[in-house]
Amino acid sequence: MTFFDILDILGTIAFAISGALSAMNRKFDLFGIFIIAFVTSIGGGTLRDVLIGATPVSWMQNTLNLYLISGVTILSIIFRNKLDYLKKSLFLFDTIGLGIFTIIGVEKGIQTELAPIVSVALGAMTGCFGGVIRDILCNEIPVIFRKEIYATASIAGGICFMVLYQLNTPMNIIYISTTLLIIVIRLIVVKYRISLPLFTVITKK
Amino acid sequence: MTFFDILDILGTIAFAISGALSAMNRKFDLFGIFIIAFVTSIGGGTLRDVLIGATPVSWMQNTLNLYLISGVTILSIIFRNKLDYLKKSLFLFDTIGLGIFTIIGVEKGIQTELAPIVSVALGAMTGCFGGVIRDILCNEIPVIFRKEIYATASIAGGICFMVLYQLNTPMNIIYISTTLLIIVIRLIVVKYRISLPLFTVITKK
Amino acid sequence: MTFFDILDILGTIAFAISGALSAMNRKFDLFGIFIIAFVTSIGGGTLRDVLIGATPVSWMQNTLNLYLISGVTILSIIFRNKLDYLKKSLFLFDTIGLGIFTIIGVEKGIQTELAPIVSVALGAMTGCFGGVIRDILCNEIPVIFRKEIYATASIAGGICFMVLYQLNTPMNIIYISTTLLIIVIRLIVVKYRISLPLFTVITKK
Repeated sequence: MTFFDILDILGTIAFAISGALSAMNRKFDLFGIFIIAFVTSIGGGTLRDVLIGATPVSWMQNTLNLYLISGVTILSIIFRNKLDYLKKSLFLFDTIGLGIFTIIGVEKGIQTELAPIVSVALGAMTGCFGGVIRDILCNEIPVIFRKEIYATASIAGGICFMVLYQLNTPMNIIYISTTLLIIVIRLIVVKYRISLPLFTVITKK
Repeated sequence: MTFFDILDILGTIAFAISGALSAMNRKFDLFGIFIIAFVTSIGGGTLRDVLIGATPVSWMQNTLNLYLISGVTILSIIFRNKLDYLKKSLFLFDTIGLGIFTIIGVEKGIQTELAPIVSVALGAMTGCFGGVIRDILCNEIPVIFRKEIYATASIAGGICFMVLYQLNTPMNIIYISTTLLIIVIRLIVVKYRISLPLFTVITKK
Repeated sequence: MTFFDILDILGTIAFAISGALSAMNRKFDLFGIFIIAFVTSIGGGTLRDVLIGATPVSWMQNTLNLYLISGVTILSIIFRNKLDYLKKSLFLFDTIGLGIFTIIGVEKGIQTELAPIVSVALGAMTGCFGGVIRDILCNEIPVIFRKEIYATASIAGGICFMVLYQLNTPMNIIYISTTLLIIVIRLIVVKYRISLPLFTVITKK
């Protein structure tokens, strides 16, 4: 088991917790909680695999993640009232997840020999899409359109990855610096409440 | 035409009627009614085929279902005010559809040599996803997250299918017992108003 | 660069503008505006490619459109208060886009050797699905279910395409007459406020 695998597992866990908490907040039943945990965790990778044609999609070929998500969801339900205390570390996990899943997506894009800009887009979709489906299923405007520079951090990380990759940087250094960049951007953004500009249309009277 | 084909057709019809009724309740126009009937009926199989890479997806290769859905939708519109009397048999058809589509999904998973747990998930998605898309397009929280143990019945049926399959039970017996199990679970659940437990998060003040 | 390529570019531009305007109306941030412009423009083609298994999907293999959409979105933001004056030509562009994307979809269906009815459906999905995703992401009931005979024009065009194709009409004539038919239908429908009939269910008291 490599360093990369460990990060992958951490990302899967963090997204599963975030999905389960969302579903409990919306008063979904037991089944709904599992489904939302599941799609939040694997949605991004599934979209990525479908778009590049890597089917059957990866969670169908590697069932470890399914058991992992199930276990994490059960623990989230049991300790649901304790998770408030974990909120800060959860935010960190979620950001780590975003970083890792972005990296995995970018790397899959490179392996599929896609253009750099497409690989960056693939990374961002892998990182963000789980949360988008979660919000659509909960009938909310996807959070990435409303709060924080979530996806922008992922895209910045993807660009960093591609630049370092073109410079033949060793992969482990690429992984670590990309993840760190995404984490740092998101921490700064949240701490200083930075948000992207809005552009409103002036309606004539 | 086998027993299985007949059940498949019954399932397709039931889901088309359920979609058309939904759309008319939401005051969609003629086109909207057709589309909702269509996606409710073929949505599950389409997701299944896309995830396992069986493309072009099945409704593109077998157009019989398209004509069937069109015909059923026209009849649903004509007899829309009589369908109240059919409501009970509709519920039954819908449950039969859920049972059949679950079976088809599980079997496709086995043919694709997926792990048993993945085949069960594939069966549940095939059975339930049509209704999920229908609700997303109607801008509602998908019904499977709000009412009845719909998907849970499908999963229970899928597990039953896999257990019997591992025991080398003849396929026809597997089909019938799985479908019956799903129907019985759903009937009991609706009759006794059983629902899965909710887990609410206690918010600190 | 053929006549067809030019029309394709016009369609892509029109849909990108329409997406960017939608997102600004909903007060999405900079990132949201880009994403909505992007999915409106490439959503239809992506669904088409995924369903027929033409992966990696086309925008991954031809990055010209990505740069085009980005440029158009930036211009839409800068000139957002001038676009009111462009509204009429925008409507025309959007209709041209619908026509072109329908044609591309139908032709892909023929190349994939799908049945005529399936090719028509594929054309309609290619033409309309971008707008559907846009509306789902904005948490609205998709506009095609509420207003104008949008998709119906696309389907009529697709049928016209198939009929002319069976009659061995030269492709350029098919392209032009199909596009013109879709534009004319939509112009007439909007001018005379024609809409498809609604069928409401009478609720018993």
